[in-house]
Amino acid sequence: MNWLAIDDNNITPEGFYFSGISAGLKDSRKKDLGLILAPKNSICTGLFTQSTVRAACVDLCEKRISDSGNLIRAILINSGHANACTGDFGLRDSMKATNEVSQLLSVNDDQVLICSTGIIGVPIPMPNLISNLPVLVEKLSNNNSNDLAEAILTTDLIIKRSLIETEIEGRRIRILGIAKGSGMIYPNMATMLSFLVCDVGIEKNIWDSIIKEAAQISFNAISVDGDMSTNDSFIALNGGKNIDPQYLPVIKEGINIVCQRLAKAIARDGEGANCLIEVIVNGARNDLDALKIARKISSSSLVKTAIHGCDPNWGRIISAAGSSGIDFNFSDVDLFIGKYQILNRGHVIQFDKEEISFYIRSKMRGKYLVSDTVKIIINLNSGKGIGKSWGCDLSKKYIEINSEYTT
Amino acid sequence: MNWLAIDDNNITPEGFYFSGISAGLKDSRKKDLGLILAPKNSICTGLFTQSTVRAACVDLCEKRISDSGNLIRAILINSGHANACTGDFGLRDSMKATNEVSQLLSVNDDQVLICSTGIIGVPIPMPNLISNLPVLVEKLSNNNSNDLAEAILTTDLIIKRSLIETEIEGRRIRILGIAKGSGMIYPNMATMLSFLVCDVGIEKNIWDSIIKEAAQISFNAISVDGDMSTNDSFIALNGGKNIDPQYLPVIKEGINIVCQRLAKAIARDGEGANCLIEVIVNGARNDLDALKIARKISSSSLVKTAIHGCDPNWGRIISAAGSSGIDFNFSDVDLFIGKYQILNRGHVIQFDKEEISFYIRSKMRGKYLVSDTVKIIINLNSGKGIGKSWGCDLSKKYIEINSEYTT
Repeated sequence: MNWLAIDDNNITPEGFYFSGISAGLKDSRKKDLGLILAPKNSICTGLFTQSTVRAACVDLCEKRISDSGNLIRAILINSGHANACTGDFGLRDSMKATNEVSQLLSVNDDQVLICSTGIIGVPIPMPNLISNLPVLVEKLSNNNSNDLAEAILTTDLIIKRSLIETEIEGRRIRILGIAKGSGMIYPNMATMLSFLVCDVGIEKNIWDSIIKEAAQISFNAISVDGDMSTNDSFIALNGGKNIDPQYLPVIKEGINIVCQRLAKAIARDGEGANCLIEVIVNGARNDLDALKIARKISSSSLVKTAIHGCDPNWGRIISAAGSSGIDFNFSDVDLFIGKYQILNRGHVIQFDKEEISFYIRSKMRGKYLVSDTVKIIINLNSGKGIGKSWGCDLSKKYIEINSEYTT
Repeated sequence: MNWLAIDDNNITPEGFYFSGISAGLKDSRKKDLGLILAPKNSICTGLFTQSTVRAACVDLCEKRISDSGNLIRAILINSGHANACTGDFGLRDSMKATNEVSQLLSVNDDQVLICSTGIIGVPIPMPNLISNLPVLVEKLSNNNSNDLAEAILTTDLIIKRSLIETEIEGRRIRILGIAKGSGMIYPNMATMLSFLVCDVGIEKNIWDSIIKEAAQISFNAISVDGDMSTNDSFIALNGGKNIDPQYLPVIKEGINIVCQRLAKAIARDGEGANCLIEVIVNGARNDLDALKIARKISSSSLVKTAIHGCDPNWGRIISAAGSSGIDFNFSDVDLFIGKYQILNRGHVIQFDKEEISFYIRSKMRGKYLVSDTVKIIINLNSGKGIGKSWGCDLSKKYIEINSEYTT
């Protein structure tokens, strides 16, 4: 059973409806308000930011998932305003918006979530939001998820959407993921919103563990700038007929695929980024050690600037690995950039610096905005632990985006 | 008893000798080899990088401080080559260089340390180093420490040197600190070399604890880019007549002053930096919590780019604080940038954005290369814990320095 990627924006999982419009929340005329409607008896799992300072909407989501017995029907998403640190407005506006949605959809208050992303400390322009909700509901469609994918963006350059499909015992099954985020990205899901829906019924406990494990090897394995935000949320809904439990591993595999695709798309679209950096650590004592080292490398400013400069600066890579807090012997380490080996058991191999530099340059975003992946592969040769992490190069454009505009 | 800052480069603590020359280790003609000679029976404490991947010279230093019973007489420092990840060259070259020095100075091998800083993975040009050692020893002087301060620099723009003096019962006492480091700087003393000498005899246990505590509130409280290096070392020597133990708090205060001055000088001279950022956290539940929050703020890329853009983006400051892992209530928080209050118990005060922006701009390095301090002050109003941390703004120049050259 293979999962097939579907590139048609008009195909979505059965029973789920999507909508996205411009409600005049942003200064631009870009779409800024989105809605997801799930079928009855859908099961919801939510993972949220680890920050001490969370937006009121995040608290509300967590409470409602619990209060509703995980039976969430709708998610409203607004971009432009995070509604974090907005004092009394925070909870009041989140309640008001979801209350309106629940009436328009005839579902319980407790079954509606709200996610917000954008500037901190400035309240949402509520009259605009409220007055546009009827149109938003009216436009709900089960054959277009692109408007939603567009409506949740902030400084992102591209929409992040991944749909895969398979067949189990003659039944077509789909998983759709939609995400946003390009700055303030760090393990623990920083300023990232991600939504996943699957048209198979799966009971809560199993769904929880599938989603948690998927997040660990995807959204929690990326870094753009090491900052974590007030609003990060990953919400996953499943709804539809159940399947034979023997096929759960297939579903799990599909969820992992979609989450990793979205996570990579976020890192690749990092503010000012020109390429995706994939760090693969093999041979660690265990998977967690491997992940920690991979994350440290992909989030090192010195590694990121070296890659930006197309410089195969292996010293910075090793130095970042060494500062991860995980113990290993340098004299056991193999290191590759792409297919080019640089270290063999801690010894520098004669390598052609220009050739590796050319390899890195070939992965950089060109005039067609297409970027590719620079791979850094380390083998610690001291166990069976493996881990992957994704990041991006650090450019002057990042500085520009974050110092010249208030975001 | 007040400590007085002395701005005369020709004054040094009694009994200590310094030297710095160009030995042709760097491509430029800049000074790149330095030496410190301490009086007999000097007591040494060394604090070293926490990285798993350490240069051989760091291991050697640690071993010799222990083997010699803390009775170190000399420290050789070379800049341009970190001698880390250089395989068998690492220890061999470190041993050879220190062995030559010990013979020239007629001291034990075990009493000579070596610190290296510069590019990783490339061996030190040993013939140049060895052939220049006699000149280096010959130039040892107790009335010029500037050559040494110059010889240990890498990408630093300015030398970092702090000398203070006081009188205790008619006796003149001096403390001198010399440091380098401007990139790969993070708490845990990353790519930083720092040396401190004091002309008062203090026994080992007391000296150890004074130095450890001083490092915690100085070198471990700064960040330039969150990267930690293979070679970071802070070595402190004391030598001279003992003083009445009742005056130890005075010495301790002096050590703290010198360490904090050097730490701030390192942060202020961060690669591409235009100002020093000082973060002061008050009212935390304890000092460690306060320090953790302060460090998280001063090392946040989003805070650093906002300050670079003269943008009083308090949302990013609060978001960084929230991601520190330390629990606090946002509704208790007061926040100031400089003297300008922005938050009062979690509520945004009407503030003049232009005025605060002007305040930040006024601290930026201008054409005379003078920079000043942008202060960020947070009061959590939930205890008596206080903590300070220092960092710098993040500019396009940082990207340039780290992507256009191999360092």
